[in-house]
Amino acid sequence: MTVLGGGVIGLSVAWFAARAGFDVTVVDHASPHGGSWVAGGMLAPITEAWPGDEDVLALGVESMALWPGFANELGVPLNEAGTLAVATDTADAEVLDQLRAYLARMGRPATRLTRRELRSHEPGLGPSVRSGLSVPGDLSVDNRALLAALRRICREHNVQFTDQSPPESTVDATVTVIAAGAWSRDLHPALRDVIRPIKGEILRLTTRPGALPPPEHTIRAHVSGRPVYLVPRPDGLVVGATQYEAGFDGDVTVGGVRDLLRDAETVWPAIVEYALTESAAGFRAGSPDNMPVIDWLAPGVIAATGHHRSGLLLAPVTARRVLTLLHDDREGGNR
Amino acid sequence: MTVLGGGVIGLSVAWFAARAGFDVTVVDHASPHGGSWVAGGMLAPITEAWPGDEDVLALGVESMALWPGFANELGVPLNEAGTLAVATDTADAEVLDQLRAYLARMGRPATRLTRRELRSHEPGLGPSVRSGLSVPGDLSVDNRALLAALRRICREHNVQFTDQSPPESTVDATVTVIAAGAWSRDLHPALRDVIRPIKGEILRLTTRPGALPPPEHTIRAHVSGRPVYLVPRPDGLVVGATQYEAGFDGDVTVGGVRDLLRDAETVWPAIVEYALTESAAGFRAGSPDNMPVIDWLAPGVIAATGHHRSGLLLAPVTARRVLTLLHDDREGGNR
Repeated sequence: MTVLGGGVIGLSVAWFAARAGFDVTVVDHASPHGGSWVAGGMLAPITEAWPGDEDVLALGVESMALWPGFANELGVPLNEAGTLAVATDTADAEVLDQLRAYLARMGRPATRLTRRELRSHEPGLGPSVRSGLSVPGDLSVDNRALLAALRRICREHNVQFTDQSPPESTVDATVTVIAAGAWSRDLHPALRDVIRPIKGEILRLTTRPGALPPPEHTIRAHVSGRPVYLVPRPDGLVVGATQYEAGFDGDVTVGGVRDLLRDAETVWPAIVEYALTESAAGFRAGSPDNMPVIDWLAPGVIAATGHHRSGLLLAPVTARRVLTLLHDDREGGNR
Repeated sequence: MTVLGGGVIGLSVAWFAARAGFDVTVVDHASPHGGSWVAGGMLAPITEAWPGDEDVLALGVESMALWPGFANELGVPLNEAGTLAVATDTADAEVLDQLRAYLARMGRPATRLTRRELRSHEPGLGPSVRSGLSVPGDLSVDNRALLAALRRICREHNVQFTDQSPPESTVDATVTVIAAGAWSRDLHPALRDVIRPIKGEILRLTTRPGALPPPEHTIRAHVSGRPVYLVPRPDGLVVGATQYEAGFDGDVTVGGVRDLLRDAETVWPAIVEYALTESAAGFRAGSPDNMPVIDWLAPGVIAATGHHRSGLLLAPVTARRVLTLLHDDREGGNR
């Protein structure tokens, strides 16, 4: 079988399939704009929850349950320090109240934190951070360490890698899994009007001698209406992310960097002393209902795309579902 | 002879010496932090003029007179659109008044421009730019195109390039020119307490479809007390530069990028639509009196360093002076 895409979804599918005995080739064009390469690495079904997206929450929670085992097999550590959702102005605080009320209805209570309590958790928060929530359950992972570990384990299971797209005849001869993130839209007519690229800009900062270290928690903030997140790494922070829909425009804009730096500085003033080590833009694979497409598109063609902001989180559940489709197929079900 | 350093000074010296018949080897470690690689490319003796630095102005004017021929031989175009010095707040405007008064005393009158006149020159200036000067005479050059042209012409004159430092015995056997910018301080004891690295951070922006193009003039602004310059390129702008003295710290800091973006946006708001294509830090070679050291340090050892903010500008006059020293030496004068 052929997997089109070498991001976290494609590699997870390839690994699970190869382990189950399939001959697997991954076609990877290794774009610098790949969503899982550029990503911040949050595994955040709870903090990402929002009224109307109950299916997304349920799928995220299902996948989250698989993550400890998934990470353990890969030898990739998870950051379990937890997440603080914080607000600066009154409108930002109201967004947090809405999130807290919704999570309570979904049976996942989050704890409200005063200004003082917030600082007992994270003394480096900026003075204009006024209220927050402690959100239990969400994790983070170093997405690039994860991708490296997935490639390694794929090789151990004899997965082949190529940067050459297969000829159409080959595609017809075997099963193809389309797992190319936002680029999947160009790989099958049935995805053309379903998957769309959603650009995100993201910064990588590195701490420097003498500077206050990064927070221990992942910090998700609303700053004057703009969402920004700070995901700690052993050597610094990942700060994200803007959100635009304007096709495959991979430029990092001055306005995007300006907003991210300004808002992140409001949340964690010490970053002015950090090094700005990378500015990048990546493409999330958007779908109409924010749910991924994990299904047969046609005989011999499976889609595993449309994961939007949750590609890393949903990798294990996606790989497992694709494996189920492949097994059904091997038993003569779908072709 | 051996030239230590492959920046604009080292290459210019190598070219002039090779053309005069010397066997020349350039030792180039090609640091990404080299001053002339990171630079903005202004050739600005007039706008850089300041009371007390009359020697710097005189040397700059002498070198400027050589630039048209120098650039012509290299086939590198000069940007002759001119320079606008602009101010935002009252204190910034006072700095411009001081510059104008000083230039008048030096016989180089600059024209004061009202808010309206400024916009007739550059309609894209931000609303808080309130006054300015049109400063005649300064030029700019694409510093990376210049470096490429210098390497090309050096090769045409059989200059050899290496990234290996020569053994000490070789150094003693011939003439060595120390032209390694800020790193020169570590190459001879006599430079140890004379040359110091002055870090500068600089951004490269690229215009994007639909965005207002960059200014035609080089814009040198004071924004709330902070100097920032915008040097146009055919495809965008170079924005610089911070100034720190903290050794050879090559990190690009969040605070530096934030200040440059904020101040450049104040001057030219359209940049928010541009792409941020590069953030870099380089080292200027500072000296106690802001004048370069171009002289024999010891038998067989010439220094050509300490050019501070004016390495590109002073390249032709420096190369000419080094060549004079070499000719004096060949005639038995100095060794």
